[in-house]
Amino acid sequence: MQEFQLIQQIQQQTNSVLPVASQGVAVGIGDDGAVLEVPAGKQLVISTDTLSSGIHFPVATLPYDIGYKSLAVNLSDLAAMGAVPRWALLALVLPRSEPQWLQSFTAGFLSLAQDHNVILVGGDTSAGSVSITVTVMGLVEPGHSLLRSGAQPGDLIVVSGTVGGAARVLELMQTGQFVSEQHLLDHPHPRVALGQALTGYASACIDISDGLIADLGHLIEASGCGARVNIEKLPAAGVLAGLEDEQKWNYQLAGGDDYELLFTLPPGHKTLLTRWSRDLALDLSVIGTVMEGEGAYCQAPDGSEFQPRGAGFEHFGQRACDP
Amino acid sequence: MQEFQLIQQIQQQTNSVLPVASQGVAVGIGDDGAVLEVPAGKQLVISTDTLSSGIHFPVATLPYDIGYKSLAVNLSDLAAMGAVPRWALLALVLPRSEPQWLQSFTAGFLSLAQDHNVILVGGDTSAGSVSITVTVMGLVEPGHSLLRSGAQPGDLIVVSGTVGGAARVLELMQTGQFVSEQHLLDHPHPRVALGQALTGYASACIDISDGLIADLGHLIEASGCGARVNIEKLPAAGVLAGLEDEQKWNYQLAGGDDYELLFTLPPGHKTLLTRWSRDLALDLSVIGTVMEGEGAYCQAPDGSEFQPRGAGFEHFGQRACDP
Repeated sequence: MQEFQLIQQIQQQTNSVLPVASQGVAVGIGDDGAVLEVPAGKQLVISTDTLSSGIHFPVATLPYDIGYKSLAVNLSDLAAMGAVPRWALLALVLPRSEPQWLQSFTAGFLSLAQDHNVILVGGDTSAGSVSITVTVMGLVEPGHSLLRSGAQPGDLIVVSGTVGGAARVLELMQTGQFVSEQHLLDHPHPRVALGQALTGYASACIDISDGLIADLGHLIEASGCGARVNIEKLPAAGVLAGLEDEQKWNYQLAGGDDYELLFTLPPGHKTLLTRWSRDLALDLSVIGTVMEGEGAYCQAPDGSEFQPRGAGFEHFGQRACDP
Repeated sequence: MQEFQLIQQIQQQTNSVLPVASQGVAVGIGDDGAVLEVPAGKQLVISTDTLSSGIHFPVATLPYDIGYKSLAVNLSDLAAMGAVPRWALLALVLPRSEPQWLQSFTAGFLSLAQDHNVILVGGDTSAGSVSITVTVMGLVEPGHSLLRSGAQPGDLIVVSGTVGGAARVLELMQTGQFVSEQHLLDHPHPRVALGQALTGYASACIDISDGLIADLGHLIEASGCGARVNIEKLPAAGVLAGLEDEQKWNYQLAGGDDYELLFTLPPGHKTLLTRWSRDLALDLSVIGTVMEGEGAYCQAPDGSEFQPRGAGFEHFGQRACDP
């Protein structure tokens, strides 16, 4: 199968899902570039992430799940910016041409795209070790994007959903154990609606890809602040049940790949949390407070400091999951 | 060196070259996404291409040249759309963290970016086999992008610069011969100014990445036409001098990686070619005519048909150069 045919296959699957004429696509897949209409009065938000086999997903991951996840981690970045997703590009490197692999991959990708009204407008296919680079675009009101840099001392630190589940699932899989919650690793839910709800209220926001404490570190460094995290407030994924406290805390603080949103909220907006949580059917946990100074301090239930193993640990080529 | 430090290194080099505040960048490198201002009354053109080591460039290529070329092949797509380049994203997969490699790569990338006023606004770094995915964005007047699909029977077929040089250089290098024209392979010149000049005049346009006859095939298929190419009119790269006719024609017709523009022009606009050629200091050769029907017919100087070896040959994983 030639590159041209691969592109045609993706194009046909794409067209069967969503009408290209909608949503500002003047030229979609099939020319040297896509031509898009950004509505007047909106800013364009754009982000790109690469997933490599064996690094960002286990080699045995099903192609459908790879397709889903490669878009999910990118939509999570748009969520963290508060943007409304609109378009995507897909650059696909495959060692061989496998129409069935591609069909399944594309189905997973488009399934999530459809959920969020995202149109695949172009891309590239080439040969090499499996690697997928997705570029996503979304729209925000001017000046309303959620940045990492706006947190102020006194702001609440809030996290959506649960944390630590994806890392625990990965470890169970790697040690050959049966895992019924594999969806925590393979099917993260990008918190797109939450990100949009937060615009105008949250003072800073980031998505949790590297691990809660590492990503909180990025946020407070960008904001020029410190943070105190109350470990007993951390929401735990069900798959962590039965673990010893310290092991659980390590998953929650240092495990990556959850794609929940971590955001800071001025305390005057605290009552909004209940409404958002109800409207979005999503747990929102206040886990700490932004402080003067720098660095994140994790407080154990007994009041002592807890230092997670592996927090921020990020050797090139040794990460399991990191877009 | 951690991913975060890699990004900081790229960010510092980027900031030393171009002021981020210019050109509609509300948020650049360093957050979950970039935030861009698309001017009212312009359409956004976007394209993405992946380059893999050993497939799209020889393994021994210098990092500076890889950086240059990874942007060049993408700008060539914007050129083929007639867009004014504006922003780029860089998703970089490296097997190990090598600050000097990255410094040199980024310098090559930014050197070409600066030539075209392109601002690097974001990206991603991860571990794996060397692979570089660049996404470029540019602007066009609404409805003025150059498509592959507008050619009409009777239109002139025109190519910029010379063809066949990059493929010849690659073959000489692969057989261990000294090549003084290595720049033809490593430093293609994306024909950005030509693409912009063509908007409103050319009926169709594509850049030559797969090879002249393969890319002409894409153009006439999209336009629903055929083509006749007059082989003796093909412009030859200097490195082809001294070759036998048929060998030379094969390089010109089937060699890829030249990144010249191939476009069709209604005959009434023919006089513009002289002006564009003079203004841009760039040869423009009329090499044939768009015909009724389908497929491209290559006519040798003696009037017989010539069928290039390898034209359109495109086995997955066997191409030397193909973004």
